[in-house]
Amino acid sequence: MNSSIKIYKEKTKRSLRLFEKSKKYHVNGVHHNIRFFEPYPFVTKSANGKFLIDVDSNKYVDYWMGHWSLILGHTAKNIAERAIQQIKNGWMHGTVNKNAVLLSEKISKVVPVAEKIRYVTTGTEATMYSVRLARTITGKKIIAKIDGGWHGYTTDLLKTVNWPFNQSESSGLTDEKHIVSLPYNNLEKSLVILKSIKKDLAGVVIEPVLGGGGAIPATKNYLKGIQEFTKKNNSLFILDEIVTGFRFRYGCLYNTMKLDPDIVTLGKIVGGGFPIGVICGKDEIMQHANTSTHSKKTRAYIGGGTFSANPLSMIAGDANLYTIKKKGNSFYKKINGLGDNTKKVLKKIFSDDVIITGKGSLFMTHFPKNNISKITNASDVSKCDTEKLHQYHFHMIANDGIFFLPGKLGAISDAHSSADIKSMKNATEHYVTNFKK
Amino acid sequence: MNSSIKIYKEKTKRSLRLFEKSKKYHVNGVHHNIRFFEPYPFVTKSANGKFLIDVDSNKYVDYWMGHWSLILGHTAKNIAERAIQQIKNGWMHGTVNKNAVLLSEKISKVVPVAEKIRYVTTGTEATMYSVRLARTITGKKIIAKIDGGWHGYTTDLLKTVNWPFNQSESSGLTDEKHIVSLPYNNLEKSLVILKSIKKDLAGVVIEPVLGGGGAIPATKNYLKGIQEFTKKNNSLFILDEIVTGFRFRYGCLYNTMKLDPDIVTLGKIVGGGFPIGVICGKDEIMQHANTSTHSKKTRAYIGGGTFSANPLSMIAGDANLYTIKKKGNSFYKKINGLGDNTKKVLKKIFSDDVIITGKGSLFMTHFPKNNISKITNASDVSKCDTEKLHQYHFHMIANDGIFFLPGKLGAISDAHSSADIKSMKNATEHYVTNFKK
Repeated sequence: MNSSIKIYKEKTKRSLRLFEKSKKYHVNGVHHNIRFFEPYPFVTKSANGKFLIDVDSNKYVDYWMGHWSLILGHTAKNIAERAIQQIKNGWMHGTVNKNAVLLSEKISKVVPVAEKIRYVTTGTEATMYSVRLARTITGKKIIAKIDGGWHGYTTDLLKTVNWPFNQSESSGLTDEKHIVSLPYNNLEKSLVILKSIKKDLAGVVIEPVLGGGGAIPATKNYLKGIQEFTKKNNSLFILDEIVTGFRFRYGCLYNTMKLDPDIVTLGKIVGGGFPIGVICGKDEIMQHANTSTHSKKTRAYIGGGTFSANPLSMIAGDANLYTIKKKGNSFYKKINGLGDNTKKVLKKIFSDDVIITGKGSLFMTHFPKNNISKITNASDVSKCDTEKLHQYHFHMIANDGIFFLPGKLGAISDAHSSADIKSMKNATEHYVTNFKK
Repeated sequence: MNSSIKIYKEKTKRSLRLFEKSKKYHVNGVHHNIRFFEPYPFVTKSANGKFLIDVDSNKYVDYWMGHWSLILGHTAKNIAERAIQQIKNGWMHGTVNKNAVLLSEKISKVVPVAEKIRYVTTGTEATMYSVRLARTITGKKIIAKIDGGWHGYTTDLLKTVNWPFNQSESSGLTDEKHIVSLPYNNLEKSLVILKSIKKDLAGVVIEPVLGGGGAIPATKNYLKGIQEFTKKNNSLFILDEIVTGFRFRYGCLYNTMKLDPDIVTLGKIVGGGFPIGVICGKDEIMQHANTSTHSKKTRAYIGGGTFSANPLSMIAGDANLYTIKKKGNSFYKKINGLGDNTKKVLKKIFSDDVIITGKGSLFMTHFPKNNISKITNASDVSKCDTEKLHQYHFHMIANDGIFFLPGKLGAISDAHSSADIKSMKNATEHYVTNFKK
């Protein structure tokens, strides 16, 4: 490992100087805590296709892909062209624009729950407003989330997000008693908890694939069971598909399981990497945000922000969905196939030393300890050796020009090819050889 | 008024069709409630310099200017060029980038409190994290805000925001008891309220010019008095300069009053109209967000979001500040002067029928009723005739191709000239003549 650090430091000298400067201005040197890794993160100069290029001109094949938002890879041609055109026509109208209608036409066609759509600027805002809708509609207060569920850092959902996935994430919160956390994929235990709070349960919010919590797909049985409970209890069933929406298919993941959520949140891919958050809901749900039919006392105030539905994010999202759709079935077949193949390749190399989770083009390598043999929720993930995962990822950054945000799941994009998986295979074999010495 | 509606409908037929479509997909047809006005808002096709152009090719001289974020006007050349270059180099790196350092160099040079800077994606997020910092650092819970204070729609500050500025804005909130509201510019009454909650007062958050609440500057005496109280009481003094930062001078407004805030939030102008929110704070304050020195129990978790410090927003902000700075003293002299002149011109036309508030390039026309003779806070604003203001603004939209977001304050940009103020004078005279009939 020390040799990797030496190699990394040798080739990232400009990054070090710039990162030192960044630390002078910024706490931890970063603007998203997860972007830091030891000894210091390289500083990106530009990105293109599958590559990140740092300020020392090192090239990295990127599997982080803008927090998994860039499913076509960096600087996808059609998005770039239409974004540039939009910049010439104004990036911030501050008024109603046509681009939002274009994007909503596409989303509503394939996301049945999106009878009404509201665009906000971030996923954090989308989940915040979803919570507000749930509390308004039900008149109840508690929101149940999942251990390891990551819905942005809104005050309303800031609990059990990060490792070890069972604590408050921050001081300075005033209303954590109304956030209750459930063990993913454990229906029995989850129902026991839900039953104990059912009188004041406004809603449950779940990612159908736990993202930051370990790239773990929910079982259909689990989601169905939670949904059934919420429907019977007059609580809202909210699916957070900010990561999974348009990730595995042209549409949401929930449709494939015949689920019937009240609200689905989207983000990332539907904005083509430009700032976006989306609240999709059934008409009867979303009408509670209608300011012409509801008073302050009965409405769920969504309001809006300066950048809500800005024409640039809207056109980028529209261009992204247009391009994916035009590529046809082969598109998801390709990236999901590459993902499946990656999992097989890595499993073959690591054998029983790892458990690989994920779905389609998303995958994550876990180094189990404490005798765990499968990973179905964040509690299992918390028992894995995260230091080893960081080592493995950092080894590839330093030696092989392959970038995973250390410790996080990887995402295949359309810019990747089977040759890249082969390079990852070689890099992983190299790591295993070094590591077993 | 009916004739204005007729004229408007005649010339905005495509807008009507598109807005009907927008209503099919979107609650109220909009993504920010304030963007709706009767009978329906026109739909913008493009923007350029001082103009908004709608889908029927009507041109409007724009005084809304992207929620007041576009101080150089729409599609400012230097911002556009550098944004287009950035799009070619990747709009979403998802990693540390140099552009954030460039922007922070500029901000920290002229905003003394910005010893440490954290970029988020919206003003809503910036104020949310500021509240979290205040509660963490003080171990107390109550945040005092101003009647009519608008800090985005974070759950933490969602109270007394909109007309009549003295109620909760939404159902579905769970922790409003920790938000207390103060009358602007009334130090005596504000101190009485603050004293009554001082034991649990985490901080006070104030806009030095009340924006959405009526374009009302705070008196130096008021801000000094509140600051003094917070310092003595070990509560945080937070200034929200999202509207005012770089609006009147190259830097913040607070410096001109020799204030000493603990945190200042920025947004809008410092992003050049691209999504941004900024938390600027003293080092000792911001270090509470440091994850390498603080545990979950003692830190204020800021986390971050997918789009935090994205290279496009950072470069746009940098380009904007670069251009303003390069224009030198004449820049603010020009737009502030045009603003002052506008106020004089309007006052002369309306005489005692209006009270005009604002500062520098920001101005707002109030139509007083209930015998009020001055406007120093939101309570005064709530006694004005908002319907008349909407009528006046709509009259200019329909008849004169002049756009104010009906009911909101106007902002002069560098794209405006004295000829535009003359046009506004003529339009206003025309309105007054019609109105007095």
